[in-house]
Amino acid sequence: MKVITTPQEMQALAQTWRVDGLIVGLVPTMGWFHEGHLSLMRKAREITDKVIVSLFVNPMQFGPTEDLDNYPHDLERDRKLADAESVDVLYAPDASAMYPVEFKTSVHVHGLTSGLCGGDRPGHFDGVTTVVAKLFNQTLPHIAVFGEKDFQQLAVIRQMVRDLDFPIEIIGHPIVREESGLAMSSRNTYLKENEMEAALSLSKSIAHARMLVEKKETISPDQIKEEVRGIILQHSQCAIDYVEIVDQTSLQSCEQVTGESVLVLAVKINQRIRLIDNSTLIGN
Amino acid sequence: MKVITTPQEMQALAQTWRVDGLIVGLVPTMGWFHEGHLSLMRKAREITDKVIVSLFVNPMQFGPTEDLDNYPHDLERDRKLADAESVDVLYAPDASAMYPVEFKTSVHVHGLTSGLCGGDRPGHFDGVTTVVAKLFNQTLPHIAVFGEKDFQQLAVIRQMVRDLDFPIEIIGHPIVREESGLAMSSRNTYLKENEMEAALSLSKSIAHARMLVEKKETISPDQIKEEVRGIILQHSQCAIDYVEIVDQTSLQSCEQVTGESVLVLAVKINQRIRLIDNSTLIGN
Repeated sequence: MKVITTPQEMQALAQTWRVDGLIVGLVPTMGWFHEGHLSLMRKAREITDKVIVSLFVNPMQFGPTEDLDNYPHDLERDRKLADAESVDVLYAPDASAMYPVEFKTSVHVHGLTSGLCGGDRPGHFDGVTTVVAKLFNQTLPHIAVFGEKDFQQLAVIRQMVRDLDFPIEIIGHPIVREESGLAMSSRNTYLKENEMEAALSLSKSIAHARMLVEKKETISPDQIKEEVRGIILQHSQCAIDYVEIVDQTSLQSCEQVTGESVLVLAVKINQRIRLIDNSTLIGN
Repeated sequence: MKVITTPQEMQALAQTWRVDGLIVGLVPTMGWFHEGHLSLMRKAREITDKVIVSLFVNPMQFGPTEDLDNYPHDLERDRKLADAESVDVLYAPDASAMYPVEFKTSVHVHGLTSGLCGGDRPGHFDGVTTVVAKLFNQTLPHIAVFGEKDFQQLAVIRQMVRDLDFPIEIIGHPIVREESGLAMSSRNTYLKENEMEAALSLSKSIAHARMLVEKKETISPDQIKEEVRGIILQHSQCAIDYVEIVDQTSLQSCEQVTGESVLVLAVKINQRIRLIDNSTLIGN
């Protein structure tokens, strides 16, 4: 596996692959790989000829009071993990190469970005869409694989790709969970032993909501959200950023639960660790 | 020459050219071709294997009181002119294909877009950068050729391409002028006989400014702008939107005239026809 650190070298290599008729896959990440990331790499490995994993902790998507400086990182650890998945290139550019002093451009997706995580993290999604547009142009993939844990992010990126006509197929890949049910996240590394029960309330409340829908066909989104909030707030360590049931494409609140409805959660543990989780309420 | 009207067909054809190793050139236009457009087509023809001319009067870059509905158009006329320049594809998508109902994305270049035409036409450059990003992804060119008449537009697009890492070389091509000196523009078609003298004041004032700089090495930008304004305002039909001398990359006002300085003008004739023109003050 090759490690590339400059946009120029990355783009030049991707161009040669393209001219050779190879199918290129991209897995964009912020590193500190867990089984969730590795499952995305395996998916890309399965369906493309060349797999690029980008590793960039993007300052533009962090707010001033967020965890940019503490975000876990260990390039050597991640290099070994990606290598073991037969990744072709680990692309880890410097922030100064991604955002030179004269950088002036941003990509904005209206509407989809105003609520949920966008409400709690102003400017976050402009950071995401801008860096993903850059990564797309630097790596020139035919296919890009994103995790469904960042559900709103995936919807926003699909919208950007459709609107700006990027010639790229976006594939969403299911959340990978610990045996306990906890959705895998690089931020789980912040959790202390005595915070684990509180963290598990996200996946437990999702399981409860799915059970409710299975039992009572007529239950309303408001009733479900009420019960979900109750389960989470049993833990004094938890503060809810949002609990919503939204349409998976428009991200608008659902009036009733359908196969298109997704329960989305964001919870802060001890005002320190922001966790997100989501699930459809019917089917897989 | 092929006429293509859907983004899907355009992108599919561009992809096959790319796989065949052909160098693709794009000339983005709003149609109503004049010698300026044709010179861009010839430039692209000279340096690429396949030339795409896009023709799209982009509603997103027009303000509510501007001339979108009156903008001159005649596809059959333009088709013949492009065909005579051995263009490979005239790409003329419908507005509904470019901006479907659910369209939500915009590309913004900060700083460079706030003054000059951006000051007079709020939102104009967001329309330009968004549609150009779309056209780039639909036509997948190696090279795109833009006219230097839209000087600020060219600077903004260069910045976007650099910032978002589009793998595209941007070529600026010189203004083509009528024998009278008038910079060619599709909007010249709006000019009545009795407005021609007023319209010529733009190019005449530019010639005067260049002569001033050639004669007096120490003349200040303020002195030059004063004389330029004087020449334009001799015509009661003229109202000045701006007269500025700016650095060609940053578009910031120059404290003194150098080889990087560009005199840029925007003038409204009879409050109806907005004309722009520009020129370096030293050299070609």
